[in-house]
Amino acid sequence: MTERGKQIGMRSAVFEDPPYIIGNSSVAGEKEGNGAFGRYYDMIETDPMFGAKSWEEAESRMQHISADIAIKKAGLEPQDIRYLIAGDLLGQLIATSFGIMNLNIPMFGVYGACSTMGESMAIASMLVDGGYSDYIIALTSSHFASAEKEFRFPLAYGNQHPLSSSWTVTGSGAVVLASSKGKWVRKETSYVRIVGITTGTITDYGIKDSMNMGACMAPAACGAILSNFKDFGIGPDYYDKIITGDLGIIGQQILADMMKGFGYDISGRQMDCGTEIYHNDIQETNAGGSGCGCCAITLCGYILNKMRKGTWKRVLFVPTGALLSKVSFHQGNSVPGIAHAVMMQAEESVSY
Amino acid sequence: MTERGKQIGMRSAVFEDPPYIIGNSSVAGEKEGNGAFGRYYDMIETDPMFGAKSWEEAESRMQHISADIAIKKAGLEPQDIRYLIAGDLLGQLIATSFGIMNLNIPMFGVYGACSTMGESMAIASMLVDGGYSDYIIALTSSHFASAEKEFRFPLAYGNQHPLSSSWTVTGSGAVVLASSKGKWVRKETSYVRIVGITTGTITDYGIKDSMNMGACMAPAACGAILSNFKDFGIGPDYYDKIITGDLGIIGQQILADMMKGFGYDISGRQMDCGTEIYHNDIQETNAGGSGCGCCAITLCGYILNKMRKGTWKRVLFVPTGALLSKVSFHQGNSVPGIAHAVMMQAEESVSY
Repeated sequence: MTERGKQIGMRSAVFEDPPYIIGNSSVAGEKEGNGAFGRYYDMIETDPMFGAKSWEEAESRMQHISADIAIKKAGLEPQDIRYLIAGDLLGQLIATSFGIMNLNIPMFGVYGACSTMGESMAIASMLVDGGYSDYIIALTSSHFASAEKEFRFPLAYGNQHPLSSSWTVTGSGAVVLASSKGKWVRKETSYVRIVGITTGTITDYGIKDSMNMGACMAPAACGAILSNFKDFGIGPDYYDKIITGDLGIIGQQILADMMKGFGYDISGRQMDCGTEIYHNDIQETNAGGSGCGCCAITLCGYILNKMRKGTWKRVLFVPTGALLSKVSFHQGNSVPGIAHAVMMQAEESVSY
Repeated sequence: MTERGKQIGMRSAVFEDPPYIIGNSSVAGEKEGNGAFGRYYDMIETDPMFGAKSWEEAESRMQHISADIAIKKAGLEPQDIRYLIAGDLLGQLIATSFGIMNLNIPMFGVYGACSTMGESMAIASMLVDGGYSDYIIALTSSHFASAEKEFRFPLAYGNQHPLSSSWTVTGSGAVVLASSKGKWVRKETSYVRIVGITTGTITDYGIKDSMNMGACMAPAACGAILSNFKDFGIGPDYYDKIITGDLGIIGQQILADMMKGFGYDISGRQMDCGTEIYHNDIQETNAGGSGCGCCAITLCGYILNKMRKGTWKRVLFVPTGALLSKVSFHQGNSVPGIAHAVMMQAEESVSY
């Protein structure tokens, strides 16, 4: 199935020794705790400030807590982790820089907007499988208030959100990836492994509506999923679930329609973290959740739980990002999207 | 010398098949063209707008030109390149997203402030050596005017810069890294190879003066260089040159003093791209140049030229970044630094 070793097809990589997810954490805000997956999170914090003095510092604290929990659940200490690969939505990644500084782990900052969890897991997987590290932590975060401040309006202004808009998730998710050659101790009966990745290209259909980011990102998700199918010679039925990041209700429908146009019916097995994370009708979250934290806490809470229990054996996890800034928006630019696909398999079913 | 395969010491990696730099480009602005290394750049553009309508778009165009030149000099087409690893200083990396979108190359966005060239080259080296790609392009950029707008004041305000401040370089540098297993055609007699990396941690000495970024970043540079010495069991005399990114005159002196405190005299073989890139006295650039583009165009212009000619055989390239944003600055936070060390060797002297 593979071509030229670990390179497969045009845009994918396949792993010889698929990295294990040996620790994971999901730290969520109160609204997320009241959402659909509340009972799966490791921690729900009712103080939106996390005891800090600014929204940015709150997000930093959330990231630090998330990293601590994931490392502890992996049975490791921070000094066991060789690389930390992380990012967030804020300008110059300040939530990350100030959040994880004290861990003193060699660090690569990444930015893929809300696709950051996919990007950090993809790079981390290659560095673990490639032999450059026994343990790497990949993490990301978003915070409703820091994101509104960064991209939209001051909270006190009370602006109205159109029905196509999404609600930025307050949450931070982290995974610790490990090589089979590391000296970690098995604690669980079944681990989830990352068997391959498909890396996205920046995809721009010219959509300029930043209040409809699902529409902006759906073409990128479609491209990543199609490339994954093509590179591995598979179709939707290979997976138990194809889980996109934060397309929301509108973007998810666009993705399904686009995939149909390419001859694939994914509707039966496709889930979108943004669409599912809140009770949209009760919680008034319009098209759903978004932000780096959206798919990160859904992965580290709900998805990994389902996979460890054996409900889903093969999952394609496809975080999606909208590559805009307030400057690019105000200059009238389009909102390009990107998506990174991560192939996860429950341990006993690893076949690649 | 190696421990556990490609992992060496606490923070370093060593490559089994050190990636080749088979293409490189340096695109510079007029002021940089009039600087110390003007004759080494591939292109000097006298229009600071690069024909665009905004500073951000100008920076995007510069990045696209830089990528095109590097890929062409490598004798490749964009579709030959498997990953593009890039970033810039602007919020949400918009110079990059809009600059390289049309290349349609699977993309990882990275952010390490002015250390971005080191970060992108480090990740790219591991992915090439690890067998995940035959060719990767690593690139970055900065633009004086887009950076002033992002971090400081509107240009028309005409604020004065203190003597400790640096001048953001208008420039974009790109390198194409290749595996020895790739089908590229040798065009030069001697190539530069990347033999190892040492990854930095976020280092914060509590300095809050964003107009003295050299002081903020020097401890991070010191940490990366010390880790490199320790992990590889070497000292300053191993290298012909130890080249930091953009410490500038003040930061460079602090680094030298710190290294002396640790028992190493690097003064004879240390160079800082920021200190050297301009004629500081004539060009009124105070402590020197800075920005992602500073060390990137110095590497792709001057440094690689010296290495290919055999003047320098072993170079430790240490881009340095200051992890601040305007928000973190206005909230009174410190300016943490990070530095990523890349070990480069002229082909015939590769020994690790």
